Amino acid sequence: MTTQDHRTEDWRALGKRFGNWGRWGADDQLGTRNLITADRVKAASALVRRGAVFDLGIPFDEDGPQIGGGRTNPTRVMSVVGGAAADYGAQRYNDDYVFMPLQAATQWDALSHVYYDDLLFNGFPSSSVDRHGAHKLGIETQSKGIVGRGVLLDVAAHLEVDWLAADHVITPEQLDEVAGRQGVEVGAGDIVLIRTGWRRKFVREGDGRAFLAEEPGIGLECCAYLREHDVAAVASDNWAVEVVPSQLADETFPVHMVLIRDMGLLLGEMFDLEELGADCARDRVYEFFLSAPVLKFTHGVGSPVNPLAIK
Amino acid sequence: MTTQDHRTEDWRALGKRFGNWGRWGADDQLGTRNLITADRVKAASALVRRGAVFDLGIPFDEDGPQIGGGRTNPTRVMSVVGGAAADYGAQRYNDDYVFMPLQAATQWDALSHVYYDDLLFNGFPSSSVDRHGAHKLGIETQSKGIVGRGVLLDVAAHLEVDWLAADHVITPEQLDEVAGRQGVEVGAGDIVLIRTGWRRKFVREGDGRAFLAEEPGIGLECCAYLREHDVAAVASDNWAVEVVPSQLADETFPVHMVLIRDMGLLLGEMFDLEELGADCARDRVYEFFLSAPVLKFTHGVGSPVNPLAIK
Amino acid sequence: MTTQDHRTEDWRALGKRFGNWGRWGADDQLGTRNLITADRVKAASALVRRGAVFDLGIPFDEDGPQIGGGRTNPTRVMSVVGGAAADYGAQRYNDDYVFMPLQAATQWDALSHVYYDDLLFNGFPSSSVDRHGAHKLGIETQSKGIVGRGVLLDVAAHLEVDWLAADHVITPEQLDEVAGRQGVEVGAGDIVLIRTGWRRKFVREGDGRAFLAEEPGIGLECCAYLREHDVAAVASDNWAVEVVPSQLADETFPVHMVLIRDMGLLLGEMFDLEELGADCARDRVYEFFLSAPVLKFTHGVGSPVNPLAIK
Amino acid sequence: MTTQDHRTEDWRALGKRFGNWGRWGADDQLGTRNLITADRVKAASALVRRGAVFDLGIPFDEDGPQIGGGRTNPTRVMSVVGGAAADYGAQRYNDDYVFMPLQAATQWDALSHVYYDDLLFNGFPSSSVDRHGAHKLGIETQSKGIVGRGVLLDVAAHLEVDWLAADHVITPEQLDEVAGRQGVEVGAGDIVLIRTGWRRKFVREGDGRAFLAEEPGIGLECCAYLREHDVAAVASDNWAVEVVPSQLADETFPVHMVLIRDMGLLLGEMFDLEELGADCARDRVYEFFLSAPVLKFTHGVGSPVNPLAIK
Repeated sequence: MTTQDHRTEDWRALGKRFGNWGRWGADDQLGTRNLITADRVKAASALVRRGAVFDLGIPFDEDGPQIGGGRTNPTRVMSVVGGAAADYGAQRYNDDYVFMPLQAATQWDALSHVYYDDLLFNGFPSSSVDRHGAHKLGIETQSKGIVGRGVLLDVAAHLEVDWLAADHVITPEQLDEVAGRQGVEVGAGDIVLIRTGWRRKFVREGDGRAFLAEEPGIGLECCAYLREHDVAAVASDNWAVEVVPSQLADETFPVHMVLIRDMGLLLGEMFDLEELGADCARDRVYEFFLSAPVLKFTHGVGSPVNPLAIK
Repeated sequence: MTTQDHRTEDWRALGKRFGNWGRWGADDQLGTRNLITADRVKAASALVRRGAVFDLGIPFDEDGPQIGGGRTNPTRVMSVVGGAAADYGAQRYNDDYVFMPLQAATQWDALSHVYYDDLLFNGFPSSSVDRHGAHKLGIETQSKGIVGRGVLLDVAAHLEVDWLAADHVITPEQLDEVAGRQGVEVGAGDIVLIRTGWRRKFVREGDGRAFLAEEPGIGLECCAYLREHDVAAVASDNWAVEVVPSQLADETFPVHMVLIRDMGLLLGEMFDLEELGADCARDRVYEFFLSAPVLKFTHGVGSPVNPLAIK
Repeated sequence: MTTQDHRTEDWRALGKRFGNWGRWGADDQLGTRNLITADRVKAASALVRRGAVFDLGIPFDEDGPQIGGGRTNPTRVMSVVGGAAADYGAQRYNDDYVFMPLQAATQWDALSHVYYDDLLFNGFPSSSVDRHGAHKLGIETQSKGIVGRGVLLDVAAHLEVDWLAADHVITPEQLDEVAGRQGVEVGAGDIVLIRTGWRRKFVREGDGRAFLAEEPGIGLECCAYLREHDVAAVASDNWAVEVVPSQLADETFPVHMVLIRDMGLLLGEMFDLEELGADCARDRVYEFFLSAPVLKFTHGVGSPVNPLAIK
Repeated sequence: MTTQDHRTEDWRALGKRFGNWGRWGADDQLGTRNLITADRVKAASALVRRGAVFDLGIPFDEDGPQIGGGRTNPTRVMSVVGGAAADYGAQRYNDDYVFMPLQAATQWDALSHVYYDDLLFNGFPSSSVDRHGAHKLGIETQSKGIVGRGVLLDVAAHLEVDWLAADHVITPEQLDEVAGRQGVEVGAGDIVLIRTGWRRKFVREGDGRAFLAEEPGIGLECCAYLREHDVAAVASDNWAVEVVPSQLADETFPVHMVLIRDMGLLLGEMFDLEELGADCARDRVYEFFLSAPVLKFTHGVGSPVNPLAIK
């Protein structure tokens, strides 16, 4: 398939077909997080075979990929360097503050992050989000997640490139092919990590503008794939999971809309999958225990995270 | 034992006796995190018996316990409410920024957070920390942790009080007593969570000033306990783990100094242990898999966290 | 007159009657700032008779009147204390950052700060203000002001009270009476400062909640007064210039709407008029040169300021 | 004269020779601001001949000259766009927050900004500045200034260049020559503005890195000039007033040290002198009333400012 095969109406139809509104009750704010049942968490813990820990967060500092005009990189300021804790005694201490967009670096989108036609996931009105934040679907509602079985689908490695071309649209067929070649199956309640190599591109080039201008990623067809496999969350090493520009002439982030607003599926962005990918290539084990808890920002619409994959 | 039994020289002697400088090499920046070996992570994963997840982070918002004059509560600002992603299309989005001390709420102290006599843990000079942050022992060096076996020692429940009195000094004997009564053993590489009830006090009273003015907590004798059991990290539901005011007339945070600067042991603060404590009281299982990853703030001296305990 | 004499429709009628849309051209973004002509600035400079300078800004710090939930007090963080400017040499330096609402303390509202019926002053659409700020009527458009003739109307002193009662509605008659008693006339292009004593109340009580809950101030009738005298700007020592709660059952800040949105008149808030008021009482001179420049925050909807009155 | 003619000892000698410690009393925190007497403010007001206002502040936004690594550009976030002021009524409002270094753009240095040999201006110990800020010589002590007679010395225009070369050291002789050619005299209590064209360079090139890497400016000899004329403050369109790199091999900002720490003279940086310079060239009047009040950041070591020159 190629880009711009879809008409605008299509994604709304996809949203309707694959949507999960009401599936877990009219008041549900967890979305596909519901698929990560206690049994599945327990099963996932059995994937810890070696005790090897991989941290998937990127550095939070001024050298990140943000370029301003909406989101800046984090600015951390030392508020105390060698301060005395009291007027007496030997102790000295250091302290710091940070100013940052909650989606500056590695992050989870809250289900309240995007929407269309005045409705958020599960039919909550968009007015649930106001200047104080998300009174429904805030990131704090996901405070017990995201933890469960993680599966890496390393598309870039499969295609033997450092990174996919910017206009590369990842298809369900390709995901199947990668999973098959890797010998792993995607199952219900899984957290799927898709590696495009876009992080490697940024690390090598250090060019935030190029990193953010466009990106390879999943196409609209993958909504069906994620729904059919009943995936709980999907994350990637690019900044929006989906291909940008989108396949549509008249919508910018249609995959966000179907996945977040219709399916209630959490998206993770700017995960660093380099070290994990290399390890999986070595031991041919592409499944693991994944722990990626959000910070409990009350009414927040996103959260920074340092996801841990444990094999 | 009672407060103020120690002379100032004592804690320096304790630091010397229990210190871990050089134990993992002259360049080591991980401290007792080294005790969480892959085998122990693997063994800890077997503690996931039901798949029940407990989030130990407190809310990150303006209603937290901070009162300014050093640390404020987090201020989150909605930077976009219902913004259009482009000049066309149906998608709308929400976005937010935060300004906060890295140690405003639930947190890990970096090993560079406190020191004395011009030296940080493992002998790094205090000048390793400058206006840019911690060039040694920064929080990002702990990016693969903290994950492993967690053990709850619920002192408040043991003593059948809502919270311990502010001047209550927790002793090693008391920790042993609690562990014995709970039927759990503290072992090498464990992450020990000590519940004083101080969080409950804040939730009930909503008084940051009272919360921060003083607190019950572990006394200097517990340094021996933590060293003998080779504990990897210790966290509590109060704001400094240790009793405040301290047992000393002339030092404010002596336990911080011995644990962090001498032993290289990570301290976690303002953990919410209410729900976990209640569950442990019900099923009498006080051990669990704990995943509490730091955010990778380059050169940071602390990190916010939402620790997950999984039983 | 008493509170709640007006019906909601009235203020819209007032806005229409006194509005200045189109008065200075269809593209005008300055509003009544246009009334401060070069001749008037020149004339105002003659009011500097002694060279005495009065600073009308309140302190910008954590002890200000803000209580969060929308606006916090400024948080200033020392980013460098005694830092070396280079690897050599004797020089040391200190540096700081601030995080603050632009309207945290003494401030000018931009003409883009408030509106109704989807239109800003002079008919600019409310969509001129988006997540990036005010593309029309931003505070930076007032960068050459506000400077000119200032007149103090000290209502609290006139009534011989420390501060007016919270439900005190200042009327045009009262302003005339105060001006007459003070021996000063309000003229075209003037910047009128109205002292209610509300600042004194805050300084004495230190209670931000009480300060912000309500306030004495000008009522809707004063819109006529300000228009008839062709005043350029009006400022007060309270937080909203106008009486709060308003005189209307169903509008919160009707004076803001008429003055800013219809008349294009700049409002200044939280001016400290204590020292100036005392001086004016002494020398019976209630007019002065006033210089209160906005900071040039591109697209900002307000600006902190430290106004200087020079007699 | 050329760069690097001085030995390090020299600037300390200059500091001693020209220093103002004790001149206005042992407790004085105003420094040369004391030279702006009421009589001089009054005399300066007579310089308002046309009522023409020139704003000398640069824009405060993300496109400023800062490049991070110590100081960032201001980040302004819209916290409310079209928010309702209450649950009823027609009013809508916009609001914003800013995060910025106090010395990000056009600014005054506080006298506590730099020092050497552990002493600040007038002998206050450097320990007067701690993690809370400057308990002596904080910027709020200058809250009644800076206002008085301003004099522009347009060196770039005099030399008929867009901007001076980066290694151009402005000498006293050159200042005299410029003043003579302009027909203006520098007198006691004056605020001297020196135009190097460095602002024009940044506006034309938009390159913060180049702007900050070096700059033309006054040399050490000008300390004598400023002392002999008893100047109250000096500001420039570059970022440090003085030439950078300095004339010394082993000190980075020696002019800062003599002017601020020894003489107690306020430095203003990143003033935009383009429009004012053009006007002065037209009417050949290089003196004016200058009003450049600091914001009252309690214990701050600098302040943003939008200086107004009024002719």
